[in-house]
Amino acid sequence: MTGTFFQPVSGFDLPRFAGVPTFMRLPHVPPGHARFDDVQIGLIGVPWDSGTTNRPGPRHGPRQLRDASTMMRAQHAVSGMRPFEAARCADLGDVGPNPADIEDSMARITSLYIQVGDAGSVPLTAGGDHLSSLPVLRAAAKSGPVGMIHFDSHTDLFHSYFGGMMYTHGTPFRRAVEEGLLDPKRVVQIGIRGTMYDTEDRDFAAAEGIRLILIEEFFARGVEDVMAEARETAGIGPT
Amino acid sequence: MTGTFFQPVSGFDLPRFAGVPTFMRLPHVPPGHARFDDVQIGLIGVPWDSGTTNRPGPRHGPRQLRDASTMMRAQHAVSGMRPFEAARCADLGDVGPNPADIEDSMARITSLYIQVGDAGSVPLTAGGDHLSSLPVLRAAAKSGPVGMIHFDSHTDLFHSYFGGMMYTHGTPFRRAVEEGLLDPKRVVQIGIRGTMYDTEDRDFAAAEGIRLILIEEFFARGVEDVMAEARETAGIGPT
Amino acid sequence: MTGTFFQPVSGFDLPRFAGVPTFMRLPHVPPGHARFDDVQIGLIGVPWDSGTTNRPGPRHGPRQLRDASTMMRAQHAVSGMRPFEAARCADLGDVGPNPADIEDSMARITSLYIQVGDAGSVPLTAGGDHLSSLPVLRAAAKSGPVGMIHFDSHTDLFHSYFGGMMYTHGTPFRRAVEEGLLDPKRVVQIGIRGTMYDTEDRDFAAAEGIRLILIEEFFARGVEDVMAEARETAGIGPT
Amino acid sequence: MTGTFFQPVSGFDLPRFAGVPTFMRLPHVPPGHARFDDVQIGLIGVPWDSGTTNRPGPRHGPRQLRDASTMMRAQHAVSGMRPFEAARCADLGDVGPNPADIEDSMARITSLYIQVGDAGSVPLTAGGDHLSSLPVLRAAAKSGPVGMIHFDSHTDLFHSYFGGMMYTHGTPFRRAVEEGLLDPKRVVQIGIRGTMYDTEDRDFAAAEGIRLILIEEFFARGVEDVMAEARETAGIGPT
Amino acid sequence: MTGTFFQPVSGFDLPRFAGVPTFMRLPHVPPGHARFDDVQIGLIGVPWDSGTTNRPGPRHGPRQLRDASTMMRAQHAVSGMRPFEAARCADLGDVGPNPADIEDSMARITSLYIQVGDAGSVPLTAGGDHLSSLPVLRAAAKSGPVGMIHFDSHTDLFHSYFGGMMYTHGTPFRRAVEEGLLDPKRVVQIGIRGTMYDTEDRDFAAAEGIRLILIEEFFARGVEDVMAEARETAGIGPT
Amino acid sequence: MTGTFFQPVSGFDLPRFAGVPTFMRLPHVPPGHARFDDVQIGLIGVPWDSGTTNRPGPRHGPRQLRDASTMMRAQHAVSGMRPFEAARCADLGDVGPNPADIEDSMARITSLYIQVGDAGSVPLTAGGDHLSSLPVLRAAAKSGPVGMIHFDSHTDLFHSYFGGMMYTHGTPFRRAVEEGLLDPKRVVQIGIRGTMYDTEDRDFAAAEGIRLILIEEFFARGVEDVMAEARETAGIGPT
Repeated sequence: MTGTFFQPVSGFDLPRFAGVPTFMRLPHVPPGHARFDDVQIGLIGVPWDSGTTNRPGPRHGPRQLRDASTMMRAQHAVSGMRPFEAARCADLGDVGPNPADIEDSMARITSLYIQVGDAGSVPLTAGGDHLSSLPVLRAAAKSGPVGMIHFDSHTDLFHSYFGGMMYTHGTPFRRAVEEGLLDPKRVVQIGIRGTMYDTEDRDFAAAEGIRLILIEEFFARGVEDVMAEARETAGIGPT
Repeated sequence: MTGTFFQPVSGFDLPRFAGVPTFMRLPHVPPGHARFDDVQIGLIGVPWDSGTTNRPGPRHGPRQLRDASTMMRAQHAVSGMRPFEAARCADLGDVGPNPADIEDSMARITSLYIQVGDAGSVPLTAGGDHLSSLPVLRAAAKSGPVGMIHFDSHTDLFHSYFGGMMYTHGTPFRRAVEEGLLDPKRVVQIGIRGTMYDTEDRDFAAAEGIRLILIEEFFARGVEDVMAEARETAGIGPT
Repeated sequence: MTGTFFQPVSGFDLPRFAGVPTFMRLPHVPPGHARFDDVQIGLIGVPWDSGTTNRPGPRHGPRQLRDASTMMRAQHAVSGMRPFEAARCADLGDVGPNPADIEDSMARITSLYIQVGDAGSVPLTAGGDHLSSLPVLRAAAKSGPVGMIHFDSHTDLFHSYFGGMMYTHGTPFRRAVEEGLLDPKRVVQIGIRGTMYDTEDRDFAAAEGIRLILIEEFFARGVEDVMAEARETAGIGPT
Repeated sequence: MTGTFFQPVSGFDLPRFAGVPTFMRLPHVPPGHARFDDVQIGLIGVPWDSGTTNRPGPRHGPRQLRDASTMMRAQHAVSGMRPFEAARCADLGDVGPNPADIEDSMARITSLYIQVGDAGSVPLTAGGDHLSSLPVLRAAAKSGPVGMIHFDSHTDLFHSYFGGMMYTHGTPFRRAVEEGLLDPKRVVQIGIRGTMYDTEDRDFAAAEGIRLILIEEFFARGVEDVMAEARETAGIGPT
Repeated sequence: MTGTFFQPVSGFDLPRFAGVPTFMRLPHVPPGHARFDDVQIGLIGVPWDSGTTNRPGPRHGPRQLRDASTMMRAQHAVSGMRPFEAARCADLGDVGPNPADIEDSMARITSLYIQVGDAGSVPLTAGGDHLSSLPVLRAAAKSGPVGMIHFDSHTDLFHSYFGGMMYTHGTPFRRAVEEGLLDPKRVVQIGIRGTMYDTEDRDFAAAEGIRLILIEEFFARGVEDVMAEARETAGIGPT
Repeated sequence: MTGTFFQPVSGFDLPRFAGVPTFMRLPHVPPGHARFDDVQIGLIGVPWDSGTTNRPGPRHGPRQLRDASTMMRAQHAVSGMRPFEAARCADLGDVGPNPADIEDSMARITSLYIQVGDAGSVPLTAGGDHLSSLPVLRAAAKSGPVGMIHFDSHTDLFHSYFGGMMYTHGTPFRRAVEEGLLDPKRVVQIGIRGTMYDTEDRDFAAAEGIRLILIEEFFARGVEDVMAEARETAGIGPT
C-alpha cells in the first residue's frame, strides 16, 4: 500500500492539460520536503547539455518530458501491472546545473544523487545529454564499480574531442571505466549502429572486455535471446 | 456507369493545388442539390470535437482532409479497382455543429445522417472526435441495433469522466450499447493497446459479450485470420 | 516585507529552463496549502476553451504561460518597482474544468474564485477563452455589480450564437450585464476594432450606457487621455 | 438588393471551421454556373508561381487564402459599410494553370479574365506570384492601355533574368509597358524599398514617366497626400 | 591513397554546425578549380523543380542536403568501408538552373554533366525534382543507351500532363526511352506503389520490356533476391 | 576598383537558392587562401553559444545567416551606395570553437581576430551569443582600450551567475572593462529595456562612467540626436 499521496492525478478527475506539470502527474517532493524520505522511486530532471558537440537543446528536455508525461495512465495494458501501487513514486525536481561550467555542474549532479541514494530512493533520470551519465555513475559507484546495460546507437567510449576535451557527450563511459565506476566485464551495449569516425571506441571496448551488440545482431537474434545474455553479463549489479 | 458528373477532377487536367477543395476532388452535392438523390456514397465532414477530454483540434479535421485528399488518384495499384466508376460518390458537405452545446450538435448530426440514409446513400464520415460516432449510430440504428468492426487503440467504453459527464470521446460505445444502438454480441474491437486507467471498460466489454482483440493478438495471428473472425462475429449487419 | 517564501526563483540562481514551471517561478500554493491565507495576489490558471466558436486551444494557455513566465525578472526597468516585494504573490494552480460541460465548468470556476476572495487574495487569471470572464465576474460581483476596464478588439456583447447558444466567447459581458454582475455605466471597452457581424453588440452597449473606445479614437487621443477617462468612468470599483 | 444567394455564410450560423471553404464564404459560381452573369465582383484564384526566381509556394496561395478568408465578417468597423450588400460577390474558382509552361499558363489566365469581363464582372485576384499581373493586364487592356496604382516594395520593371528570360516575377510591368497594356504616364508605384540590384528598373521608370514613390517619401507625406497624388496621376482609368 | 585534400572535415576537429557547408564536408571543387580533374566522384546539386506538377520546393534540396550531410562520418559501421579513402570525392557545386525556362535549364544541366564526365568523374546528383534525371541521362547516354536500376514509388513513364506538356516530373523516363537514352530491356523499376491515374505508364513499360517490381513483390521476395535479378537485368551498363 | 573576384554572385545570374552559401554570396577566403591579405572587410562566423544561461542555439546562427544573406543585393535603395564596390569583402569562414570549453574557445576566437587584424582586414562578426564579444575585444584592444557603441536591450554588465561563473552572455562587458579592453568613458549602450534582476549592472555603469540610453530616451529624442551624442562620446576609436 502506498496511500493516496503518491498516486498520480487521474485524467478522469483532472483534464491532462490542467495543473502544474510534474513527471507523470506525481507529487513534487524536492529535497527538504516532509515526505522526501518516503520516496521509493524518485524522478529527477537533469536539464543540462553542456557536453554536446553538435545540436544543443536537451537542457529543455525535462520540462518537455514533464508536459508529455501527463499522458501516462495507471495500468499496463498487457501485464496488468499498476506501477504506482507497487512503489511510492515522486517528482524530486531538477538538478540546478551551471550551463557555463561542466565541472561545477557534474559536482552538483553527483551531490544530489548521493543525497537521493542516502534517503533510500532509486533515481530515474530525465536528461540532458549523455554526459549526464558520468556524474550519475559517480554517485551510483560510491561503494564500488557497477555493471551497465546500455541501449544506444553509439558507444560513447571515445577518448576526447577538439584536441583534448575529455568531457563531452561522446566520452562519458570511457571516463567511467577509467575512473573505476563501471566494471567493463559487466557492461553490455545494445543497438550500436550508424556511421563511425574510426574504430577507436570499439578497440577500447575490445581491450576492456565490454560487450557490444550491434543492431544487426540484435535484429537477427531477437529481444528474448539478447536480453538473456545481457542479464547474464551484467550479473548481480545495477544499471 | 456513373457518368462524368461524379468523377473526381484528375491531376492530369487540373494541378492538385488548384480549385476549391472537396473530398477527393468530387463534386459538392449538399442536401438540396439537384443530384443529391443520385449519390451512392456520400462523404460527410463532422467538424466537431466537443467530446474530447484532452487536446482539441479535430474540428479542423474535415477541412484538412479535404485538402489532403486532393492527392487521391483513380485506381488502386494492386487490385486495379476504380472505385469512382463502381459507385457515384460525392462530397455532401459538413454538418454544422454547435461547438458549445453537445446535445444540440448530436441532434444535428443524427438528423443529417437520417436524411442521407433516406436518400439511399451510404455515408462516409470525416471527423471529428470519437464522440461523433454516437449520433451517427443513432441514425444508423433507426431500425434496430447494428454490429460494428472497430479499429482503435482504445475501447471508448468508459462510463463517464470528471464526476459524471456521460458524453465524451471515451464513452460513445458504452452509450451506444446502453441505448440499444449496438448489438454487443456483434461488436469486435481490434487493435486495443496503450496504458489503461483501470479495467472498467474491459469489464463492461466482458459482461456484454463484446470481443476485444488486443494489438498483441492481432500481430500474432495476422490480418487474414483476425478479419475472418471479425466478419464472422459481425455477421450480417453494418459497421 | 514579504519574506523569502514568496520570492520568485532568480535566473541568477537557477537557469530559467530548470525546475517545475509555476507562474513567474513563484511558489505553488494551492487551496489547502499552509500558506494559502497569506497570499495577497494569487495567479490562477483557467485551462478552458469550451466557449470558443472557432479555433480551440486556449485550454493549453495556462501551461504555456507558466513556461513563458519563467523569463520574468524582479524589477521594472523604468519605474524601478519590485512587485514581488510589494505583495506576497503565488501560483494557486488551475481550476479543474469539465471540458465537455459549460455549466459545470462555470460553477467550478466561480467556486474557486469565491474561496480565493474569502481568503483575502486578489486573483489574476491566465485563460482560457473569453467566456472565462463570466464565472469570474460571478464571484467578483458577489456583493454587488462591479465596473470594468476592458482591453480587447471585440465587445463580447453579443446575444447568442448558432440559434440560441447563450454561453460562448462572444457573449460573456452581455450575460454579465443581464445578470447584474457589471454596472454598465462603469464599463469602458478600449481598442474595439476589426470587421463586424452587424451592430447588435454596439446597439446593446449604447442602450446600456457602456462606453466603447474604438482603436482609432485610442490612437488619436493617446494613452494618457484615454486612461484618464477610463479611470473616471470606472470610478471606485474593480475590473 | 443582392438577395440571399450572394451573401456570405455568417459565423453566427455556421462555425468558421465548417464547410467547404470558398473566398469569404461566398457562393462558388464558376463559369457555366446559372448565376455566373449576375456576379458583379468575382474573386478568382491564380494558383501559379512559375515566374518566381527564388522561393516557390504562391501556387498554394489561393487555397490558403480561401481558408483564412472564412474569418471575414459582414461590416466594416469604422465606415459601417456592408460590402456584400453593395455588390453581388462570388468565388469564381481558380484558373487551371500549367505549372510547367509559362506561355500556356498566361494564355489560360488571359482567357478566363476576358470571359469574366465579358460577363460584366469586376475581377479580384488572389495569386500567385507577380508575373500573374501580366496576363491579367492583357485582358484588362483589351480596349486600350490602362493606368495602375501599385503597392509593392519592388518595381517589377526589370528587363530579364538568367541571361534573357523575359517572363519572371521581376519583369511583368516592363513587359506590360512594352506591350502597350499600361500607360506609363498614368502609373504610380508606391512603397518601393529594399536593396537593389542596380538602377536599371528606375532608369526605365524615369524614361517612361512612371511615378515611383519610395517608402521614405510615403512616410514623410502621409497616406492622404500620397493617395491624392496617386488618384490624380491615374486619372480616369482602372488598376 | 587520396591525400588529405579530399578528406572530409572530421567532427572531432570542427563541430558539425561550424564552417561553410559543402556536401559531406568535402572540399568545394567547382569547374575551373585546380584539382577539378583529380576528382573521382563528384557531388553535384541540381536546385531545380520546374517539372513538378504539384508541390514545389525541391529547388531548395541541395542546400538542405549540404547542411544535413555534415552529420556524415568516415566509416561504415558493418562493412568497415571508408569510402573517402577509396576514392577522391568533392563537392562540385550546383548547376545554375533557369527556374523559369525548362529547356534552358535542361541544356545547362546536360552541359555540366558532360564536362564532369569528360574530366573522368562519376557524378552523384542531389536534386531537384525527378525531371532532373532527363538532362542527366542525356549526358550519361552520350555514347549510347544505358541501363537503369530505379527505386521509386512511381514509374515516371507517363506521356504528358495538362493537355500536352511533355517535360514534367512524371514523364522523364518516357522521354528517355523515346530519345534512345535508356535501353528499356535493361531497366528495372523497384518499389512501385500508390494509387494510380490509370494504366498508361504500365502499358508503356510492358510494351517496351521495362521490368516493374511492385512493392508487394519486393517485400515478398526480399532484398537479396530482387537485387540479384536487378543486377542481371541491368547487365553491364550504368545507372 | 575591387575587381570581379570580390563581387557577390548576382541573383540575376544564379538563383538565390543555388550555390554553396557564403555570407552575402561573397567569395570564401579562409586564412591561407591566396587572396586573404587583399580582403578589406572580412565576415567571420562565430558558431558558439556556451555562454548562454538560458536558450541555446546561436551556435547555428552563422550557417543560418549565410543562407539568409543570399537575399542581399548590390545597392542601397536610398543612399545609392554600392558597398561591395567600395571595399573588397569576403567570407573568411568560421572560428572553430570548442563547445565544451569556454576558455579554449575564447583563445581560438582571439587568435583568429588577431590574425585578421594583422592582415589589415576589418572583421564583421556573425555570432554566436553575447559572450563572443569578449574574445573579439581582446583582439581589438591589443594596442590599448577601445570605445564602443552598443545596441542592445541588456547591458551585459553583470558580475557573475550561478554562484561565481564569470564568463556568460550577461557578463562580457563587465569583464572587458575589468581587463582594460574597453574605455568606459567612451562606451555608449543604446536601447536598454526589459525587466531587471536588480540594479547591479546599472550601478556598475554609473560608477565607471558608461553612458546608458534607455529605449524610452531613445524614442523621445530620435535617431539623429542620440547618434550625435553617441559619436561624440565614442570619439576617435572603434566599436
